[in-house]
Amino acid sequence: MQNFDYQTPTRLIFGKGVISNLPEVMKPLGKRILLTYGSGSIKKLGLYDKVKELLAEFEIYELSDIQPNPKYDPSVLDGVRICKQHAVDAILAVGGGSVLDCSKAIAAGAKYDGDPWDLISYKVSAKDALPIVDILTLAATGSEYDCGGVISRTETNDKIGYVDPHLFPVCSILDPTYTFSVLRKQTAAGCADAMNHVMEQYFTEDTTLLNDGFCEAELKSLMTNTKIALENPEDYRARAELMLCCTYGCNGILALGNSASGWPCHGMEHALSAYYDITHGEGLAILTPRWMKHILNDKTVGRFVKYGVNVFGIDENLDKYEIANKAIEETYKFFESIGLPMHLKEVGIDESRIEEMAHHIAVNEGLENAYAPLTEKDITAILRDSL
Amino acid sequence: MQNFDYQTPTRLIFGKGVISNLPEVMKPLGKRILLTYGSGSIKKLGLYDKVKELLAEFEIYELSDIQPNPKYDPSVLDGVRICKQHAVDAILAVGGGSVLDCSKAIAAGAKYDGDPWDLISYKVSAKDALPIVDILTLAATGSEYDCGGVISRTETNDKIGYVDPHLFPVCSILDPTYTFSVLRKQTAAGCADAMNHVMEQYFTEDTTLLNDGFCEAELKSLMTNTKIALENPEDYRARAELMLCCTYGCNGILALGNSASGWPCHGMEHALSAYYDITHGEGLAILTPRWMKHILNDKTVGRFVKYGVNVFGIDENLDKYEIANKAIEETYKFFESIGLPMHLKEVGIDESRIEEMAHHIAVNEGLENAYAPLTEKDITAILRDSL
Repeated sequence: MQNFDYQTPTRLIFGKGVISNLPEVMKPLGKRILLTYGSGSIKKLGLYDKVKELLAEFEIYELSDIQPNPKYDPSVLDGVRICKQHAVDAILAVGGGSVLDCSKAIAAGAKYDGDPWDLISYKVSAKDALPIVDILTLAATGSEYDCGGVISRTETNDKIGYVDPHLFPVCSILDPTYTFSVLRKQTAAGCADAMNHVMEQYFTEDTTLLNDGFCEAELKSLMTNTKIALENPEDYRARAELMLCCTYGCNGILALGNSASGWPCHGMEHALSAYYDITHGEGLAILTPRWMKHILNDKTVGRFVKYGVNVFGIDENLDKYEIANKAIEETYKFFESIGLPMHLKEVGIDESRIEEMAHHIAVNEGLENAYAPLTEKDITAILRDSL
Repeated sequence: MQNFDYQTPTRLIFGKGVISNLPEVMKPLGKRILLTYGSGSIKKLGLYDKVKELLAEFEIYELSDIQPNPKYDPSVLDGVRICKQHAVDAILAVGGGSVLDCSKAIAAGAKYDGDPWDLISYKVSAKDALPIVDILTLAATGSEYDCGGVISRTETNDKIGYVDPHLFPVCSILDPTYTFSVLRKQTAAGCADAMNHVMEQYFTEDTTLLNDGFCEAELKSLMTNTKIALENPEDYRARAELMLCCTYGCNGILALGNSASGWPCHGMEHALSAYYDITHGEGLAILTPRWMKHILNDKTVGRFVKYGVNVFGIDENLDKYEIANKAIEETYKFFESIGLPMHLKEVGIDESRIEEMAHHIAVNEGLENAYAPLTEKDITAILRDSL
């Protein structure tokens, strides 16, 4: 078991109708609020009007049109400019992980005199950040309970995950009913994203009985409840459990003391969506079973056996490689069954830039130090197998 | 799934040698520290000298001799007096849950002008408290990661659990090697305490797949690792996993969204240890299987089936009452196997005050609203069955 230093100070207010707490949550943070959101679905949900009504006594500035795979230019730069120009006190992010990730970069940039890219690219450490509150409308990334974000810079094909302890949301307002209208495609992609967060922590060298059990519970709950939510999008219990599962995905609580795995699927997927702007969860669903197949060997087979027996209920008396291969097959079949595309070609990626992406990943993601080390050749093979 | 409002801001620094972080942790809290500890085992461990050496630049005041089932008089009152007299800035609790619980009551009392019992008995809400840091030497209560404590007042046979959000430790320093020398009896009692914390959250009306999985992982890890630690007290991995399991026991993270169970075994045990000053975990181990047997009925049997199948691996094809009864038997046998006393008579409790305690419990613990409601008659029956 590894030493660790863990803290997640975020307050979670969870359940039906909890948005009524918003004024009480925002009040201590100041009067001038930057409201950030995406394409306008929060207007359809009625959330935009509700927020404006609840915060009638605040000064609200707005940054809209934040895209999936949120962009440094224009979103982060615009947000920082607004915050500085109006001396904004706090950010209220309303949306999914992309809106929240973008808002985190803005929060840090607003308190920094130089180019915000210095912070995102770890050239400089943030000394401070604006406080962030979020109202979540999509269960997936876990950004509502961690201090990281992912920002894309189109001109350099960079998609960078940055982490800074100043960036924990002060409070996340989590009402599962806001996810009732999430489309099938996004519900499935969110499930794949959250499942992969768990797998990135589960498939590693040094784990514990406790953490393995936590991760297996997450995976089983995510699969069961995604099926229910796809069947009946307004099933409150399923949507609620999915939301909580996703919330735990990225802040470390599922795997305190586990050795680092290197997060290989995320490392590879970040290049796919940086080059092709695809949906993150879809990229992960396509890569995951190919990555599993590629790294299965005598060192890793034990983890796959545990995964297969405890998550999919595969007979533990079978040969260990048989269990492992069945587990990989079940993973593939589950993603397929919830309607996810299972080939890169289906999301518009052909073989033309495979080598270029593999090189980019090998240079930038440090996957030679992953649980199962990946060279550029390995990465190329996994990407090719995913076509 | 129930609405909830959850926050645990405590920083956990976990692992071998992490005490070296102590000066960095204490520095922002101020210069005048109240060091609290128990019977002197921290001197045998060398921890006392180590703390004094690391904090050579601080002004240290001391409160020692804090007893198990920590007492309002003299410990809490003495601690409050020292804090007020010397304008103490922060408390450093070194020990197990009793030292930490006592320190929490002191922390609140030091910032209150009246009788500290007003706070513990919920007559008045704390407005503030001194910051608390702890160095844990016993895995059991989870006080290192929650904002509650339990204080006993001998003259009234009161043992009160009080909870206040000001009382989360700022930081818990968790080095599993400090638990190597914990006696067999205490290791076993700590396991029973932590297991019961999990059960009090698991046996309830409204749960989720996710939370059930978390709780089952906890129970399996606690049982497996306690057996290993009793066999080899210096097994680092086992001691480390036990410490982390216990840390999650009481702050709610294992069961966010579950309905309240009423914590019936804790309610009953608090009377036993208030009247007879027995070891809390031993009292819980004796009560738990009798409580289970008493509440088993058509409404509760499903929970026992899940518990039996997922925690003890009992064949799910058996009759549901057969599974439930086997699960209760396995619970009893496990506690017995780790050397816990399984009858009240073994811990010095005879039938003379059963009625009196049952009445005290019925009046004070609100167990008529528990998951399986308990009247005074039920409580009497459970206590009698435990003799």
